Amino acid sequence: MAEIIDGKKISAEIREELKVKVLELQNKYGDVPGLAVVLVGDDPASAVYVRMKGKGCEEIGIRSFQYILPETTTEDELMALIDELNKDSKVSGILVQLPLPKHISEKAIINAIDPIKDVDGFHPINVGKVVADEDDCFYPCTPLGCQILINRYVKNLKGKHLVVVGRSSIVGKPVANMMMQKNDRANCIVTVCHTAAPDISLYTRQADILVVAAGRANTVTGNMVKDGVVVIDVGVNRIADPSDPSKTIIVGDVDFKSVEPKASAITPVPGGVGPMTIAMLLSNTVRAFELQRKK
Amino acid sequence: MAEIIDGKKISAEIREELKVKVLELQNKYGDVPGLAVVLVGDDPASAVYVRMKGKGCEEIGIRSFQYILPETTTEDELMALIDELNKDSKVSGILVQLPLPKHISEKAIINAIDPIKDVDGFHPINVGKVVADEDDCFYPCTPLGCQILINRYVKNLKGKHLVVVGRSSIVGKPVANMMMQKNDRANCIVTVCHTAAPDISLYTRQADILVVAAGRANTVTGNMVKDGVVVIDVGVNRIADPSDPSKTIIVGDVDFKSVEPKASAITPVPGGVGPMTIAMLLSNTVRAFELQRKK
Repeated sequence: MAEIIDGKKISAEIREELKVKVLELQNKYGDVPGLAVVLVGDDPASAVYVRMKGKGCEEIGIRSFQYILPETTTEDELMALIDELNKDSKVSGILVQLPLPKHISEKAIINAIDPIKDVDGFHPINVGKVVADEDDCFYPCTPLGCQILINRYVKNLKGKHLVVVGRSSIVGKPVANMMMQKNDRANCIVTVCHTAAPDISLYTRQADILVVAAGRANTVTGNMVKDGVVVIDVGVNRIADPSDPSKTIIVGDVDFKSVEPKASAITPVPGGVGPMTIAMLLSNTVRAFELQRKK
Repeated sequence: MAEIIDGKKISAEIREELKVKVLELQNKYGDVPGLAVVLVGDDPASAVYVRMKGKGCEEIGIRSFQYILPETTTEDELMALIDELNKDSKVSGILVQLPLPKHISEKAIINAIDPIKDVDGFHPINVGKVVADEDDCFYPCTPLGCQILINRYVKNLKGKHLVVVGRSSIVGKPVANMMMQKNDRANCIVTVCHTAAPDISLYTRQADILVVAAGRANTVTGNMVKDGVVVIDVGVNRIADPSDPSKTIIVGDVDFKSVEPKASAITPVPGGVGPMTIAMLLSNTVRAFELQRKK
């Protein structure tokens, strides 16, 4: 029986700590951090995420600025807003909800965000600093959440084999880069496997720690892992409910039922990595406020 | 018997191509690329590298500017020179020879180089763009040289297991990031192993392609690789000559004698990766000139 990695609880603890921190900042600077979230278009899932982020801000006492723009917004208009937010001292962090409509270049928009307000950690300069293991940068929220969960459940990571399934820029690649670093939060031997492998089980079966971010349900099943593995499931997939096909349920990328009995610890979906991502976003926003004050 | 990967020959071919390219640029723009190399202090090995780089420039018809500064140069003085070179339109590329004296922050100096002149590919914004698989950036010279050699000797990289020994910012990490990308020059399953592993042979033995950048002679011996492996040896180590201990010889990180019989292809040291690094520096400088003209 695996220990269930309770991301919801850990996230709540972190948000409590942030709440205290925000009060301290308020006392010290007479001001609190602020997060601007920009949404273009009316994708319902994105709208839910944006609302959750706003609510997360309010709960820990930081300002939330939400910009809900129509689908027809041009790249120039969005660029002008980013420019304004870059200059606004009340805005500590800027997050542009992805995906953007196809007529807007995501790369151009992300590159336009001032790196010191890039709380998503997607600007190339932050990506580069993460690879270089530097401090004055933002770590991307989901990988940072994974790292914190791993550190809570695995003592002495040195030389452990961490296998990442998936090579996306938001999860797979940053997790790999962060977890191979020579520091106490990492120091793992890292393998990144992905769709090009004829058989990913050759790699997943070696994992002491397995991070799955493939974007597909049942990517990893029980016969693909070794006993005692620690599993971090980053997937969020909506599938037909097996017990009532007229409904849908949310599952991860890992077949929980067959993997859990072999694992020593595993994240559930929902309630594992998901809640950590938003806690890391809030944490990065508080950090952005502090970095900007120190500058 | 392994095929010997002749880096010297491939490098010479690339430099011939660059020579033609430079003539074309001269005809098109009435100007040629220029590379500024900055050396602080009088480390003899560094002085040799700097001279080789100058000679490399001359051979393909590009301008070479060499700045040999005393060991006592301050960070501010060096910073002022970088600033001047950033502004100088005759200077397409800037390379600061590392290591710098301890009283100068390498990080601060590298971050001060205009990313569009950073032909070493060490600026965080270039590091980040390499991770994101973007085009408008500079790939670091040694990893790029390794990638070209691998592509000449391995057809269809898709799903091959590439194992990197070493996690330095100059070789291990960029090679890993470049070789896991979803493109035709890469698409490998990548493992990065290093000193934290109790036994690196668990990983090296799995490699279809093995890149060794550990900085220590005999890091990989014949019993640590599988038959048919392609070996890229990035190491440069000066050791006592076994046949005459009063002399020294240059060897790589791989025990050539025991690994070569099992490999399908292997780089010699010297004459493998080394000559590729300088060809890639020249190539990046020509590219810098073009990127700056397009801007």
